[in-house]
Amino acid sequence: MKLTILGCYAATPRTITNPTSQVLEIRSRMFLIDCGEGTQVQLRKNKLKFSKINHIFISHLHGDHFYGLVGLISTFMLLNRQTDLHVYGPKGIKEIVLLQLRYSNSYTGYNLYFHELDSKESEIVYEDEKVVVKTIPLKHRIYTNGFLFQEKVGDRKLNVDAVQEYKIDTCYYQKIKNGRDITLDDGTVIPNDELTFDPIQPKSYAFCSDTMYDESIIPIIENCDMLYHETTFLESEADKAEKTMHSTAKQAAAIAAKANVKQLILGHYSTRYDTIDLFRQEAETIYSDVLLADDGKTFEF
Amino acid sequence: MKLTILGCYAATPRTITNPTSQVLEIRSRMFLIDCGEGTQVQLRKNKLKFSKINHIFISHLHGDHFYGLVGLISTFMLLNRQTDLHVYGPKGIKEIVLLQLRYSNSYTGYNLYFHELDSKESEIVYEDEKVVVKTIPLKHRIYTNGFLFQEKVGDRKLNVDAVQEYKIDTCYYQKIKNGRDITLDDGTVIPNDELTFDPIQPKSYAFCSDTMYDESIIPIIENCDMLYHETTFLESEADKAEKTMHSTAKQAAAIAAKANVKQLILGHYSTRYDTIDLFRQEAETIYSDVLLADDGKTFEF
Repeated sequence: MKLTILGCYAATPRTITNPTSQVLEIRSRMFLIDCGEGTQVQLRKNKLKFSKINHIFISHLHGDHFYGLVGLISTFMLLNRQTDLHVYGPKGIKEIVLLQLRYSNSYTGYNLYFHELDSKESEIVYEDEKVVVKTIPLKHRIYTNGFLFQEKVGDRKLNVDAVQEYKIDTCYYQKIKNGRDITLDDGTVIPNDELTFDPIQPKSYAFCSDTMYDESIIPIIENCDMLYHETTFLESEADKAEKTMHSTAKQAAAIAAKANVKQLILGHYSTRYDTIDLFRQEAETIYSDVLLADDGKTFEF
Repeated sequence: MKLTILGCYAATPRTITNPTSQVLEIRSRMFLIDCGEGTQVQLRKNKLKFSKINHIFISHLHGDHFYGLVGLISTFMLLNRQTDLHVYGPKGIKEIVLLQLRYSNSYTGYNLYFHELDSKESEIVYEDEKVVVKTIPLKHRIYTNGFLFQEKVGDRKLNVDAVQEYKIDTCYYQKIKNGRDITLDDGTVIPNDELTFDPIQPKSYAFCSDTMYDESIIPIIENCDMLYHETTFLESEADKAEKTMHSTAKQAAAIAAKANVKQLILGHYSTRYDTIDLFRQEAETIYSDVLLADDGKTFEF
């Protein structure tokens, strides 16, 4: 998986910081998560081939998480996009986008599907043969979901030396990778584990923003490889975090520790602090593997 | 008047170009004209004190002219703006903005007034003691207005030497500037033109974008000091201009010439051309005083 942070600062776009948006590349798919104002320019700046984005996940309807969506949809239209585009987000997102397209008398030449969410339970919103995406219900001032991206267990890996030694025809390779044993011409059965290695361990990524400290997400994100958790504030502003239903760095770290995730990325920083390293320092007091998101930064895992 | 171009390129925002938006500073007022995506960042980049913007004029509801509006309105909210904000634009703009604020459960702490336009005749949309703003009905694919900003004729200028020579008390100065004659203690009447000079000639600025070639705007913009006229295309793409209801550089120049404006600024360039100087070259074949808009450029007149 490769995660590119297009924007990870709270509230308003500024000259040097961008509101929330990120691209997750996973098994040749390119998912866009949130789409604050300026996202399409950030996609260009980071040289991401954004015609490859077919699925956009919107956490909630605060402007810093979706004001760039209608512009991106319009740009796809101007670029003569033909491929279907799917948008997953809170109820209302369809009305907001279509109202604007209607007033501009513009219609997409591609199919635009809205998958509106209103469940308060975690649910599968996307699934194909290699990837599944589930919502992570979050607690914020308005209806909000995080998203858990999970690779599915892939094919077993072919043991090339072994299949060649048994002179097995290449036409059986896919069946072997699927786990089948092979019967040779002389009737000997070769068990699959002699012909294959275990598949690559599937990875998972959990995006949790915006949210207050909420332990009820732990069973959903438990043991995931990478957790992005918002940290709008430091503990010194814990009262503000509570009032605005955001998290502090310490709270993000506590969730990471309790959910036993492998690594934690912090983001959604308030711009009131002089350096974002303060967030890392605070989080590291209770969880060791802390990374800092920043606009334009990529993470591979 | 001081005009700052925040963006002057057609269609989609890109890394180095911005969609339409400009700030007109006139008699201590700061007017925002159009508000494409990224306008608030452009305001910051150009170090414009954007809390001073109290009036926003939107030409039409194509995304490259207004997708930045809701973000700017939200940012004003986050900055705890108290001053009233007025938005002038086509019918629909209120519904679009309020729908998004409603879904985000956000309400401005300041009064937000929408002045929705649907007249096909030129009308006064703003007026105070020093400035008047009229619509310029344009011909485009959807309902569109340009805007004519006119200074009003100001006070007459005090002839300081003359008033001192006649020993006129300062409390009469404002009346003199308003055009009054003065009667001295000995009964002598001093006519106003001995005590004052003519006022500064009022300036005017016409913003015309987007529009096809349309001579019916000439009576409205006639003799204005500065005309900004869109030129999405060159004559080599005149067929595209006609089809999409845009103008070529030559057509923009023809309007400038026929309306006898003092200077012409070209803008709203399609990004298909290698250099915007091609627009100037083409326009100069029929009109001499051609300026090129560019993002971040200012014009004083």
